[in-house]
Amino acid sequence: MKKFLNDADGLLRDALAGMVSAHADVIELHPDPCFVRRSGPPPRPKVALISGGGSGHEPLHLGFVGRGMLDAACPGQVFTSPTPDQMLAAAAEVDMGHGVLFIVKNYAGDVMNFEIASEMLEIPNATVLVQDDVAVERSTHTTGRRGVAGTVMVEKMVGAAAEAGADLAQCKALGDRVNRATASMGVALTSCAVPAAGRATFEMADDEMEIGVGIHGEPGRRREKLQRADAIVDELVGAILSDLKPRPGAEVLLHVNGFGGTPLLELYLLQHRAEAQLTWLGFKPVRFLVGNYTTALEMAGASLTLTVLDSELKALWDAPVRTSALNW
Amino acid sequence: MKKFLNDADGLLRDALAGMVSAHADVIELHPDPCFVRRSGPPPRPKVALISGGGSGHEPLHLGFVGRGMLDAACPGQVFTSPTPDQMLAAAAEVDMGHGVLFIVKNYAGDVMNFEIASEMLEIPNATVLVQDDVAVERSTHTTGRRGVAGTVMVEKMVGAAAEAGADLAQCKALGDRVNRATASMGVALTSCAVPAAGRATFEMADDEMEIGVGIHGEPGRRREKLQRADAIVDELVGAILSDLKPRPGAEVLLHVNGFGGTPLLELYLLQHRAEAQLTWLGFKPVRFLVGNYTTALEMAGASLTLTVLDSELKALWDAPVRTSALNW
Repeated sequence: MKKFLNDADGLLRDALAGMVSAHADVIELHPDPCFVRRSGPPPRPKVALISGGGSGHEPLHLGFVGRGMLDAACPGQVFTSPTPDQMLAAAAEVDMGHGVLFIVKNYAGDVMNFEIASEMLEIPNATVLVQDDVAVERSTHTTGRRGVAGTVMVEKMVGAAAEAGADLAQCKALGDRVNRATASMGVALTSCAVPAAGRATFEMADDEMEIGVGIHGEPGRRREKLQRADAIVDELVGAILSDLKPRPGAEVLLHVNGFGGTPLLELYLLQHRAEAQLTWLGFKPVRFLVGNYTTALEMAGASLTLTVLDSELKALWDAPVRTSALNW
Repeated sequence: MKKFLNDADGLLRDALAGMVSAHADVIELHPDPCFVRRSGPPPRPKVALISGGGSGHEPLHLGFVGRGMLDAACPGQVFTSPTPDQMLAAAAEVDMGHGVLFIVKNYAGDVMNFEIASEMLEIPNATVLVQDDVAVERSTHTTGRRGVAGTVMVEKMVGAAAEAGADLAQCKALGDRVNRATASMGVALTSCAVPAAGRATFEMADDEMEIGVGIHGEPGRRREKLQRADAIVDELVGAILSDLKPRPGAEVLLHVNGFGGTPLLELYLLQHRAEAQLTWLGFKPVRFLVGNYTTALEMAGASLTLTVLDSELKALWDAPVRTSALNW
C-alpha cells in the first residue's frame, strides 16, 4: 500500500498544519499538547464538547470541530490513543464555565486515557461512550462493542443540543440516548496499512471480504467470498435491525460510510439498496449521510449506520452545523 | 480491485437513484434521457449551466448541481461520454430563456457529443472547454490538454456569476478566463479498474508512481520510483507554475484533489507542503480546497490545481453555494 509520506513520525504534525491552514475560518491548532479547537468563541457560553482518538479516521474527529458540533478534538498518532495531557489542555482551553463532555469511542486505550483525564480534571465533566458496532461483542482492543461511524451522529446531535443551551447532564443523557438509538456494521474489501508499520494490517485474498470488520482492521464476524452488493447490504441491514429493533414504521437516519478506498459511486449503490430494503421492511429512512466520514486510512469497504429518530433527534440532526466535514 | 457491485450495467442507474434520494433537497433525477437537475427553480431566471462526462469521477459533476453551480449534469457510463440526447433533454428542461452554457472537459468523446448537442440545440448556447492539465499536450483520448480537477473552479466561479445575473456571453468569457488562470497536474500511486472491464486499467510496480497521470489512468510524463511526498509536491507545483507564470506576489487558490483511494491525512500533508512551497516562492495561497472532488474511481493518488485569483475570481469563489459536494 503506497502512500504520500516523508517520514511516518512527521505525518500527523504536517497534516494537522495543512488542515488548520485550509480551514482557518473554522479551526485552530494548539500544537503542544496537541489539539484542534473551534476558532472563536460560540455566541454564548455552553457545555464544551471534546472528542479524540487515534488519527487515520479523518474527517473524524478533527473535521467535526466547529459550530454545532465539537469544541475540540485530540488526535493521537495513527490508530493510537491520544494522551490525558492533550485532553486536559483542551478542556482547560475550551471550557466556558458550563462543564466538559467527553465523547469517546469504546477502545481500551481511549477509554483509559479519557478516564484519567476525567479524574484529573477540576472542571465538572462527564463522558459518553460510543459503542455502536453490532458486529462483535469483544474485539482486539475492546471490551464490549467498538465505537465506529455512529460517533458522527452522537457528535452532531449532542453538538446541536449544547449549542442550543442544554446543560452538562442533559448533554450526557442525550449522548447516551443517541448511542442506544444507533447501530452500525461494516465490511472490508481490502486491508489498510499503518504508515509506521509499512505493511497491510491483515491479509485477505482477492475474492474475499471481512464481514463486521472494525475501523482499525479488527476481525469481524467472518471471512467469506465477496458477495453481490445487494446481499452485503441486506446482511448489514438485518444485523443492525435485529439489534436496534425499531418499532414498525419508525423513522431512521441512514448513514453509508466509506472506509476511505471505495468510490462514491459504490457508496451510493449501497445507499440505494439499503434505503429500498429498509422501506420494504416497513421503516422510513428520512435522513441520509453518504460519504467518507469515519475512515480506516485507505481501506476499501463501507459501513452502514442507522439511528432511530424521533422529532427531537431529527431536529438536532437538522440544526445548523459549520465544520470542515459537515456544513449545513 | 474489489468493488461493491451487482452488475456493471446497473451500477450507474442504481447509484444515481441513491444519490438523488440522499440529496432530494438539492437535486432531481430525469431518468431517460438521463440527467440530474437542480431541484426547484433559482430565485430569478438566469443562464443555465450544464456539464457532464463519464461517471467514475464523483462527486464531479453530479455533486456540483445546485444553487451557485450547475443547473444540470449529464452522466455517461463509467469513463464513457454522455450522449447528445442527454444534453439536449437537459438543456430543454433547465433553460430559463437566458441561454445555455456547456462546461466540457477536453476529451474527444465529450467534445464531439457536446458539439453535436450545441449544433442541434435551438436555444442560444456556448461552450467552455476545460483544459487545465499541464502534464502532457496530447493524451490517449485527447487532442490538446486534458480537463481535470480545475473543472471545479470553472463550474464554481461561472456558477456564481450566472447566479448573480451574468449573461451568456459574460459567462462564456468568464469560463474561458478561469480556464486560462487554472492549471493542474496529478500523480498516481495505483491504477483504478473500470467495473465493466473488471481489471486494472494499467499495471504499476509496488515501488512506482506515474507523474502526470490522467483521471482515467492515461499515461503522464513518466513512470518512476515513488519519491518523498515533499519532492512530489515540489515537482507538481513547479510544473504548474512554469505553465501559469503568475506575477510575483499573486494570490492563488490551491486545490489538493484526491483521486479516490488516498486518505485525507495524506491530502493535508500535500496541502501543507504545497502551501509552504508556494509561499516560499513568493505567492499567496489565500483559498484552499482539499479532498476528493475529481476522482478516478478508487485510484490512489492526487492532483494539485492552482487558480490565479483576482478580486473578481475570489469573490466568485467565496459566493454561496449549495450542492451535495460543495456547500458554503
